[in-house]
Order: sequence, then structure tokens, then C-alpha cells
Amino acid sequence: MSALSEGLTQIVIPLASLVGIGFALLQWFLVSRVKLLSQDSSNGYKQKLIESDEEEEGINNLEISIKCTEIQHAISVGATSFLFTEYKYLGIFMCVFGAIIFLFLGSVKGFSTKSEPCTYSQGNTCKPALANAFFSTIAFLLGALTSVLSGYLGMKIATYANARTTLEARKGVGKAFITAFRSGAVMGFLLAANGLLVLYASINLFKLYYGDDWEGLYESITGYGLGGSSMALFGRVGGGIYTKAADVGADLVGKVERNIPEDDPRNPAVIADNVGDNVGDIAGMGSDLFGSYAESSCAALFVASISSFGISHEFTAMSYPLLISSMGIVVCLITTLFATDLFEIKKVSDIEPSLKRQLLISTVLMTAGIAVVSFFALPSEFTLFNFGTEKAVKNWHLFFCVAIGLWAGLIIGYTTEYYTSNAYSPVQDVADACRTGAATNVIFGLALGYKSVIIPIFAIAIAIYVSFSLAAMYGIAVAALGMLSTIATGLAIDAYGPISDNAGGIAEMAGMSHKIRERTDALDAAGNTTAAIGKGFAIGSAALVSLALFGAYVSRAGIKTVDVLTPKAFIGLIVGAMLPYWFSAMTMKSVGSAALKMVEEVRRQFNTIPGLMEGRVKPDYANCVKISTDASLREMIPPGALVMLTPLIVGTLFGVETLAGVLAGALVSGVQVAISASNTGGAWDNAKKYIEAGVSEHAKSLGPKGSECHKAAVIGDTIGDPLKDTSGPSLNILIKLMAVESLVFAPFFAAHGGFLFKFI
Amino acid sequence: MSALSEGLTQIVIPLASLVGIGFALLQWFLVSRVKLLSQDSSNGYKQKLIESDEEEEGINNLEISIKCTEIQHAISVGATSFLFTEYKYLGIFMCVFGAIIFLFLGSVKGFSTKSEPCTYSQGNTCKPALANAFFSTIAFLLGALTSVLSGYLGMKIATYANARTTLEARKGVGKAFITAFRSGAVMGFLLAANGLLVLYASINLFKLYYGDDWEGLYESITGYGLGGSSMALFGRVGGGIYTKAADVGADLVGKVERNIPEDDPRNPAVIADNVGDNVGDIAGMGSDLFGSYAESSCAALFVASISSFGISHEFTAMSYPLLISSMGIVVCLITTLFATDLFEIKKVSDIEPSLKRQLLISTVLMTAGIAVVSFFALPSEFTLFNFGTEKAVKNWHLFFCVAIGLWAGLIIGYTTEYYTSNAYSPVQDVADACRTGAATNVIFGLALGYKSVIIPIFAIAIAIYVSFSLAAMYGIAVAALGMLSTIATGLAIDAYGPISDNAGGIAEMAGMSHKIRERTDALDAAGNTTAAIGKGFAIGSAALVSLALFGAYVSRAGIKTVDVLTPKAFIGLIVGAMLPYWFSAMTMKSVGSAALKMVEEVRRQFNTIPGLMEGRVKPDYANCVKISTDASLREMIPPGALVMLTPLIVGTLFGVETLAGVLAGALVSGVQVAISASNTGGAWDNAKKYIEAGVSEHAKSLGPKGSECHKAAVIGDTIGDPLKDTSGPSLNILIKLMAVESLVFAPFFAAHGGFLFKFI
Repeated sequence: MSALSEGLTQIVIPLASLVGIGFALLQWFLVSRVKLLSQDSSNGYKQKLIESDEEEEGINNLEISIKCTEIQHAISVGATSFLFTEYKYLGIFMCVFGAIIFLFLGSVKGFSTKSEPCTYSQGNTCKPALANAFFSTIAFLLGALTSVLSGYLGMKIATYANARTTLEARKGVGKAFITAFRSGAVMGFLLAANGLLVLYASINLFKLYYGDDWEGLYESITGYGLGGSSMALFGRVGGGIYTKAADVGADLVGKVERNIPEDDPRNPAVIADNVGDNVGDIAGMGSDLFGSYAESSCAALFVASISSFGISHEFTAMSYPLLISSMGIVVCLITTLFATDLFEIKKVSDIEPSLKRQLLISTVLMTAGIAVVSFFALPSEFTLFNFGTEKAVKNWHLFFCVAIGLWAGLIIGYTTEYYTSNAYSPVQDVADACRTGAATNVIFGLALGYKSVIIPIFAIAIAIYVSFSLAAMYGIAVAALGMLSTIATGLAIDAYGPISDNAGGIAEMAGMSHKIRERTDALDAAGNTTAAIGKGFAIGSAALVSLALFGAYVSRAGIKTVDVLTPKAFIGLIVGAMLPYWFSAMTMKSVGSAALKMVEEVRRQFNTIPGLMEGRVKPDYANCVKISTDASLREMIPPGALVMLTPLIVGTLFGVETLAGVLAGALVSGVQVAISASNTGGAWDNAKKYIEAGVSEHAKSLGPKGSECHKAAVIGDTIGDPLKDTSGPSLNILIKLMAVESLVFAPFFAAHGGFLFKFI
Repeated sequence: MSALSEGLTQIVIPLASLVGIGFALLQWFLVSRVKLLSQDSSNGYKQKLIESDEEEEGINNLEISIKCTEIQHAISVGATSFLFTEYKYLGIFMCVFGAIIFLFLGSVKGFSTKSEPCTYSQGNTCKPALANAFFSTIAFLLGALTSVLSGYLGMKIATYANARTTLEARKGVGKAFITAFRSGAVMGFLLAANGLLVLYASINLFKLYYGDDWEGLYESITGYGLGGSSMALFGRVGGGIYTKAADVGADLVGKVERNIPEDDPRNPAVIADNVGDNVGDIAGMGSDLFGSYAESSCAALFVASISSFGISHEFTAMSYPLLISSMGIVVCLITTLFATDLFEIKKVSDIEPSLKRQLLISTVLMTAGIAVVSFFALPSEFTLFNFGTEKAVKNWHLFFCVAIGLWAGLIIGYTTEYYTSNAYSPVQDVADACRTGAATNVIFGLALGYKSVIIPIFAIAIAIYVSFSLAAMYGIAVAALGMLSTIATGLAIDAYGPISDNAGGIAEMAGMSHKIRERTDALDAAGNTTAAIGKGFAIGSAALVSLALFGAYVSRAGIKTVDVLTPKAFIGLIVGAMLPYWFSAMTMKSVGSAALKMVEEVRRQFNTIPGLMEGRVKPDYANCVKISTDASLREMIPPGALVMLTPLIVGTLFGVETLAGVLAGALVSGVQVAISASNTGGAWDNAKKYIEAGVSEHAKSLGPKGSECHKAAVIGDTIGDPLKDTSGPSLNILIKLMAVESLVFAPFFAAHGGFLFKFI
């Protein structure tokens, strides 16, 4: 028996969630103390106090503050309106797909309302398949709504914080850093705590109906993961296309043709570009990581429910995944204090080490946290389901599983930092290759991305081997949870990046001095690296999560082996490995086409609006926002359909073995494409920033802005945009979503699938 | 029993080989009738007759002919000297690796000279493992030598034909086409016939020792495939780095900085560039396809030897793979006549259809040929080995296996043509994306490459499913052979490309008129497409071959299933899927670094040699040749070591299951990377040619040479160079070579492997 009683478990989990939410609100309050000017519709502008301890240039410049407020308002309105439009379409999708889930799963036993004998808990009676269909649909909708909420809240705080970061940058880099970082923390904690709370509440509510039928209960709960991830897919793809169409379009005309700086207010696409950061990098990333979190919890819970925990109804042990997440919230809370209160950023070169320290501190503390949870929540010995057999496991085995996932995440994070930060030789080599033009820059950048997969893959492979050997598929699922246990900190340092990017944009648009822009650029360069680290976590955890879901799918579909020496499985494997390419082709082409349209519109405005280039007339920002919005909503459908329909078609026509092959193939191939795409893009972006900043002799010899080297670097940066922000990160979701969808529909495929092969 | 008697089989196979060699020599003779000026060392230049039916410009211009001869001589000397240097290193490698094979395989039974009971042919006695070690080593050396010979002969005829094609271009595009095509045919037929003849002779010689022990005999013969492929690895990688270092270096300074045309004789890297086409695209490709051919034959023979054919000693049925290849030579011979004698090329737009027709004719004829061979060479019913069980198969089943491989090859070829020829919209879209600069060109090009994998993968998957279902692993092996059965035609249209490329280079360097250059450019544009088609065949067949070898390896290592649900196999799968990225990172970086050195040298010459830019002084070509040579020899070692050592390390430390996972992972991931890299590169090259040629209104609006669009296209072309000619095609060899190496070393791994896991 677990040392922690069921009653205490029922208190600890919601308490941790509420602490997380409270902490997030506190951070939000602290950010809100940086005052902006508020726009009073009747009186024009009324100045509120700008608190300041130091006197620095422009700090009391009213005009600049007004401009910042205006720009922030435009970005916030743009982002909110885009998300609402997107959510309208997603609402329709949710209803349709919810109905599909209900019909497919309901049909497994012919919509019968009679109770059935349980599959695993022998001798007992379980609820009818129709009930599972109904509750899976409810769980799907709850997951989808929580995902949408996560993305939306992230966007809200980010657009709230961007101008505040700009204003704080006038006082120094440390102040700006704290504002951006606190805002990132708001998002991180809200997301982690909400995800946990909704999942916990759902389990308890569903239990009112299911009672002792835990098999059915946790089978239905997997719908939560599917809901989370399917929203994330559209968030990532739609947001990714939005942001990169605007970014690429703005750069191609602004930087390359018109020779005006990035984020120049004369550029008609500049608002769309800044909106994009919030809907793509913030809202999309939030939904993505929420999806991973929900899925790994669901995969672990499902495997546990058909193991000894579930069969002997040990609630505390069953809740091990939720307790790990609860501990994660507490650990991240302590970690955040290190950045916000214990250490202070005094100069630019402190930023990256401070962010790296966050990762390290949270990992070290969490290791102890895992030990505590494993000791108190688990019986010292128990059995886990292992593809039809039972595997005897000790509680310290699970400690190792979670811990190795956690540390593998750290290794992936540090490797990503090494390959994408301009403090190290890989990015500097790429910058150096700009000497001979854009072509060598691209060749070196692609090679860097390919090379950067080596260590992460070894880290993932070792984590898989250890956790798989110790605790079968449950081990993989909790390893994924381990990697995600510090999600609040991970998201904080990740969201910090686009917020700084926006802050720089606002500084430029508001016409603030070069010095302010330099500070926000330094924040942003570190932000590129942390964004890449965040993507590294996202893809690493996605790999583990998918494998865990894959294992759960295989168990639920009743397959004992997935033998690549059978033709059914092998063709699945090779076609699955192709899917990431098909998907990337779609998303890259979408960004390309949308960017071309954006370029035409920006060119048109420059050519037809007199006085625009001289800064006398404002461009028509709204038209560019509309182009990005329309393109992203239209273009997200084909890749979305590819991901959502593949498991349904393969499962129905070719059966469970081929689908297992497809999942494995997409997993092992997609991970590589995603990591290399993200890192290549991050490296190009920072190679450009390295040349622009010119902090070393080497960097100075390549610059300054506008030199031939810099132009070559800008081309690389532009190519990297869709790689790192659209196709790369969307692939995480491709591999996870296909796995969780297969898991949810597994009973249907097992009952009615393989239609085509049966026919032959 | 087979309808064809053993005696007749013993006549038919060598006869077909000799017919192939005779036909190749005839084609060579026809090419040699185009006379060059011969350089007589004592007397200066002595003119020989230039035969001509038509009078066209410059046809009797002595000076131009002398220049062509000089240039050809320089290219030929450069290529020969590089290959000899390369072969010197490869000679050392062959000896060392031969010793490794002997020691590893000899140690399986502790170097015992005692005969052993057979594994499959129960109740009989087989030769000792030491004998197998010895004969495997001999077969390895024979395969390596044949591979080297194939590459060398291809290079010889190509450097013999290039200037002749240039001279013929003065008379019209049709004449030039015939010369280039015949030369390609020389290479195709020599390679196919030599490969078959040496394999046939080896089997008969080995049989003198092995007698009735066919298990041991065909186990040893697999060394032939390993030898062929390991030479191909270094040929592809070394040649690929050589050619692209020179090409990229020449383009970056010549086209981009100095604004001089491609192949301008003032460019110091121009000879190295033209040498590169011969050592990379010709010799490397020759070795590669020879390797595929040898491996698929060996895989089929090995599986057959442990099936009923081998156990009941049916020589004709055993020789089915060799008979298919014999029939292929005859079919290709007839097909060639269509291009050289039955149809005539009158204008530029005839070229591509004529080459496409070659593919179609050979495929249709070969389908009938396969039916004939299957009917006469096979008993109407027999059993094949299927991972420990026996599978009953009919002769028409094998007909379908071979035929589906053949037709899958055609589909891959046609798809590749669609995605890389500038006659279709994909390449035109890429060209159009140059309007907005290099960045969109690259984004669209990458998307095109990703998209181009879809149909080939489905074709491969269907071929695998059908042949696997009908005849297990033997079916896969003969499907690969089916795809390669028309190798002589495939190589002819493939080798035609680099020959035309060289011809264009020589025309430019010899200062021939714009009109001649336009003709060779048209030949070359079609050549880019056929080169891409050739790469499509190479990778498609590599996928099937690897799978067949994988199956043979699994059988020989005594594994019954490769279950991805075991941690050992899964970590192999994910690490295997990473290897193509690691390998590509190495090769791309090598090309990049070597190109940077080349750029520096070319710049140095332009800056320090007075009168070079004005064309008064000759550049120092030899220095550039030396840079390419040194770079390629040095840089081919790390990727070579990665490929050669991975199976040895994984097999020894982690055992046969993990190695099986690695092979499957590398296969399913490598195929995608290779296809997309080849097609992306081919598309960029032809997008550039599309803008240069300006044949349509659309193309004219993007050009002419030197326009902003064209500059963007040149950047894409340069990026594509290492993708399409170094890393992409080398990946074929990565996946094949690891599989065949695992097969050869399987007895060792099965006996002593998995050291690390045993230790844990």
C-alpha cells in the first residue's frame, strides 16, 4: 500500500493546482505594476504614473509611451481577433470530430447499452461501450477547451507584457528581463496548473458514473489527450503559417528590397508580424505543450488502470502521474524565485546563463521531488501491464524512469542551446560561411541542423531503453511526464522569447533610441535560443509521449508484437516515415505562397501610397493582417486533414498492424526532421543576430548591418522561419496526435478495421 | 523441375554477358569514329579527318578543335590521376577490411578446420566456418575490384566522349545526342555484363571447393555484394565531395562575384569542376548501381540457397536471379537500338521524350522477358525459406514479384522526371519563387523535394507488400533485381547527363559560339532530369535491396521477429533513423569547407595573377584540382567510418536485435532523405536552366542571365549541389552497405554479439 492515503491525495493535487494558479496571478500582478498609458476615449490621453527608480533617456517621454500603448493595443486586438476567428472554425471541427468519436466508438458493440465483462479485470462487469463513447467525447471536448484556454491566456499575458517590457528596457536590461520572464511564468504556471486541475476534476466527475469500472474510466479519459492535441495541431499550424507569412513577407520587402530595418513602422506587414509571434510562438506553443502533458498523463493512467493499481483500485498509486505534476508545480515555483528574486541580471551577458540556470535548478530540485513522490505515493512493489504479461516493478524503478526522462530533457535543452546560441562555435561557423554568400550559409546551416539531432536522439534512446526495461510502457509514459514535470519553468523561459521579440518590435516602431533596441535585441537573441530549447523539450517529450501512446494503443488494440518482418507492418513503417515529409511539404509551401501574397501587398502599398517611405503616411496594417489570417485559416486544413485522417483511413482499411507500423515510422522519422528543422532555423536567426550585434572581432569583420555577409545571413534567417516556426514544431503534434487518435479509436479498429486486407 | 536444363543455363548466362560486352565495344567503336585532333608530342598538332555530312559554322575551325582536344586531355588526366590516388587508398582499405572479415568470420567457430553439420540442409555436412571466412574474403575482394573496374571504365568512356559530343554539337543537336547516348550505353552494358560475368564465374569457381555445400557457397558469395558496395561508398562520397567542392567553389567566385559565365576558361576551378563530373556522377554512380545489382543478386541467391532450390540442388532455379539479369542485357540491347537507330532526334524538344521512351520500352519488353525466364527457369511449384518456416510458391508468383519491382522503378523514374524537369509546373513554380529572392526559392525547393517522396514511397510500399506476400524475402530480392534488370538502359540515360555537362563545359572553354552552347545546354538540362531519374532508380532499388539484405541478415542471425515493442529493437530503430542525418551533416559540411578553400584559392588567383580576368594569362588549374583531391580523400574517411563501423559496433556491443532495428530505421528514414535531397537539387538546377533558356513567356519574364531572379536561382542551384550529388546519393549506399555488412558478419554477431547487454 502507498504511504500517502487516498484522502490526502485528494487534497494534495487540487491544492498544488491552486497554488500554481495563485502564483501565476501574483506574477501577473507584478507585471501589471509597470504602468502603460491608458487610452481614455473621451479625453484623449491621460498619463498615469510611470514608476522609476533611475533616470534614463526617454523615460518621461510622453510621446513614446503613447506610441507604445497604441502599438500594443493594435497587436493585442489583432491577436485576439485572429484567435477568435480561428476558434470559431475549431469549434465546428470540435463538434464534427466529437460526433465522429461518439459514432465510431459507439459502433464497437453496436450501440448496445448493456454492460460487458471487463477485458483486463477478469470476472468483473464493466460499463457498456456506448458509455465509453460518450465519456470519451466529453473528455475530448474538455481537453480541446483547456487547450484553447491555455493558448488564449498565454496570448493575453504576452500581449499585455510586450509593451511593458519595452518601457522597462529604458531602465536597463535587468528590468526588462524580469518583466518578460515574469510574464512567461504567468503562462507556464497557468497552463501547468489548469491542465492538472481539469484532468483531476474530470477523473473525479467521471468516477461518479463509472464507480469501480476503472478500465472504462481511464479509457474514456484518453479523449482528454486527443482533444488537447488536436487543438494544438491547428494552433501550431495555423499560428505558424500566420506568423511566418507575415515575417517572411515583411523581411523580403522591408529588409531586402527597401533596406529599412526590421519592425520599421513604415512596413505594412509589421503589425501582422508582431501579432504572429503571439498567436504562433505563444498560443501555438502553449497548446502544444499542454497537449504533450495531457497525453503523457493519459497514457500513464491508461496503462496503470489495466495494471495492478487499477485492478486493485489503489487511487494514490493510480494518481502517481498527477502527483508528479503537482510536485513539478511546487518545484518550478521555487525555481522561478531564483530568477526573479535571488539573482539579478545586470548586463546582457548574464541573460543566457540565467535562463540556463533555471533549467538546471528545476531539474536538480525535481529529482529530489520525484524521489519523494515515488516513495510516498507508490507501494514498494507492484505489477505493471506489459503487452499481455505482468511485470513486477519496485517503486525506485519508477523513480529512475521519471528521473531519466527529466535529465534527458535537460541534455536535449543544453544540446539545443549549444547548437543555436551564438555564443558557441556552431552558429559562429554558420555566420562565417556568410562570407561566401547565402549558398554556403544555407549549406552550413542545414548541416548544423542535421548534426544537432545526434545527441538528443541518443538521450531519447537511452531514456527509452532504461524506462522501457524497468517498467515497460508505463515507464515510457512517466519518463515523458518527467521531462514535462518542469513544464512551468520550460514554458516561462520559452514564452519569454517571443515577448522580447515583440518588445523589440514595439521599441523600433515607437521610434525609441538605438540603445533600447540593442537591449531588446540581446533579450531576443537569448529568446531565440530559449525558443529552440522549448522546441527541443516539445519534440523530446513528444517522442516519449508518442511511444507511450503507441504502447497503450497496441495494448488496447490487442496486438502482441509489431514485427517489421511482416509486410503489413513494414509498409506501415516506410509510409509512416514518409508522412513528416508530406506534412512539411504542405506547411512550407503554405508559408511560401502566403508570403508571396504578403510581398505583393507590401510592395503595392509602398508603390501606391505616397509619402509612406518617408514616414509621413501610415501604411494599411489591417490589409496585411487580413492576408495572414485568411492564408493561415485556409492553409491549415490540408495538413490538419492529413494528420487527422491518416489513422482513421489506415486503421479502417489496413488494420491495426499496419497502423502500428505507421505510428512507429512517423515517430522515428518525424523526430529527426523536427529537431533538425528547429535547430537549423534557430541557428540561422542567431547567426544573423551575431553579425548584427558585432560583439567580437570576428563578428565585426562580418558586419555591419547591410554588408554582403549580413544580406546572406538575412536570406538564411528567412529560409529558417518556416522551418523553425511552422513545419518543425508542427511535427511534434503530427506524431503525438496520430498516436493518441489511434489509441482512442483502437477498439473500433480492432473490431472493424483492416477492411481492405480482409477483402483481398 | 525447370524446363531449362542445367547445361543450357551454364551456356546462356556467360553468353549474355559476352553479348553485352560485345555490344558495349561496338558502341565505343561508333563513338570513336568521331575524330579528335591527336596531340603528337614531337610535331605539335597534326590534323586528322573530321568527318562531316553537313557544313555548319566552325566545323573546320582548326583552332577550336585543338582547344577541345587540349581540354579533354586535361580533364581525362585529372580524372585518371584522381581515381588512381583514390584507388591507392581504397586498396589499403580493402586489405584491412578483408583481414577483418577473415578474422571475425573465422573466429565464429574458433578457427576450426573441421566440417560442421549444416544449419538448414539437415542431416548433411557443410564446410568449416573458416572456409566460409576465407571465401567471403575472396568474394569481397572480387566485388571490390569489379566495382572499381566499373567506375574506372565509365570514367574512361565519359572523358573519351565529352569532347566528341562537343564537336558533334556543331553539326546539330541530334548528332551530339547520339554520341553522348552511345557513350552512356558503353558504360551501362560494360557494367551490367561485367557484374554478371564475374559473379557467375565466382560461383562456378567456388563450387569447385564447396561441391554440394550450397549453403556455405552462397553465404560466401554475399561478400561480393559487400565488396561492391563498400567501394561504391567511397566512390560516391569521395567523388561527390570532389565534384561539388569544385562546382560550388567555381560558381561562388565565377558566377556570383566575377560575373563570368559557367565553365569560363578564366575560372581556375573550371577543370576541377569538369573532372568532378566524371569522378563523381559517372564513376561514383557506376559503382553505386553495380553495388545494388551485386547485393540484390547475392541476397536472392542466399535466400534461395536455404530454400528448396538449394537443398535439392536445382542449379537452374538457383540461377533465376542471374537469368533475369541475362535477359535484361538482351532487352536493353534492343531498347538501345530504338534511340540510336530507329528514331532520330531533330530538335531540342525531342530529347527528353526520347529518353523517357527508353525507360518505357525497356520496361515493357522486360515484362515479357521476365515471363519467359520465370516460365523456363523455375519449376511450377516450390518452397521458399520464410524466417524459419517454408512458404509454398508458384512460378508465376515470382513473375509478379520481379515485374512489380520493374514497374515500381518506372513509376519512380517518371515521378522524378515530373518533379525535376522544367517542362512541368513544380520546377516552374520554384523558378517563379525566385521573383521574391533566394529565400523563397529555397523554401519552395525544399517543399518540392519533400513532396516528391510521396509517390515513390507508395510505389516502393506496394512493391514490398506484393512481393513480400507472394514470396517472402526472396520476393523482395527479386523485385529489387527487377528494378535493376534494365540497369544498362538506366545507366545509359544517366551517364548521358554528365557527358553532356562536360561537353557544354568544353564548348565554353574552347570559346565556341553561343549556338553550340545552347545545344549542349539543352542536352544538359535533359541530363539533369535523367541524372535525377538515375538517382531515383538507385534509391528505389537500394530500398528494396536493403530490405532483402535485411531479411537475409535476420535469417542468418537466427532472429524470428523484430518486434518494435521491445526496447532493444526500438532504440535501434530510432538511432538508425538518425544515422542518415549524421551522415548528411558530415558530407554537407565537407563540401562546404572544401568549397570555402576552393573559393579562397580562386579569389587568390584572380587577385594575384595579372591579366587573368582579361583572358591573357591561363589560371593555375592544377592547384584547384589538388584542393578538390585532397579535400575529398581526407573528408571521405569520417562518413565512411560511420557507415562501416556502425554495424560492427552495434552488432558486437548491442547484439542482433538492436542491429536489426538500426537497419530498419536507417532504411525507412534514409530513403526519404535521399529522394528529397536528390529531387530538390535537381529541381533547383533546372529552375536555373529554365530561367537561362527563356523558352516561354513566363521564363523570359524571369530572366535573362544576370537578372535578380537568375541570381536567386543560382543560389538555389549552389545549395542543391551537395544535396543532389553528395549527401543524397551517398545515402543509398549507407542503407545498403550497413545491411550487407550485417549480413556478412551475422554469424559472428549471432555467436559473440550483444556484449554490452550481456554485461548489464
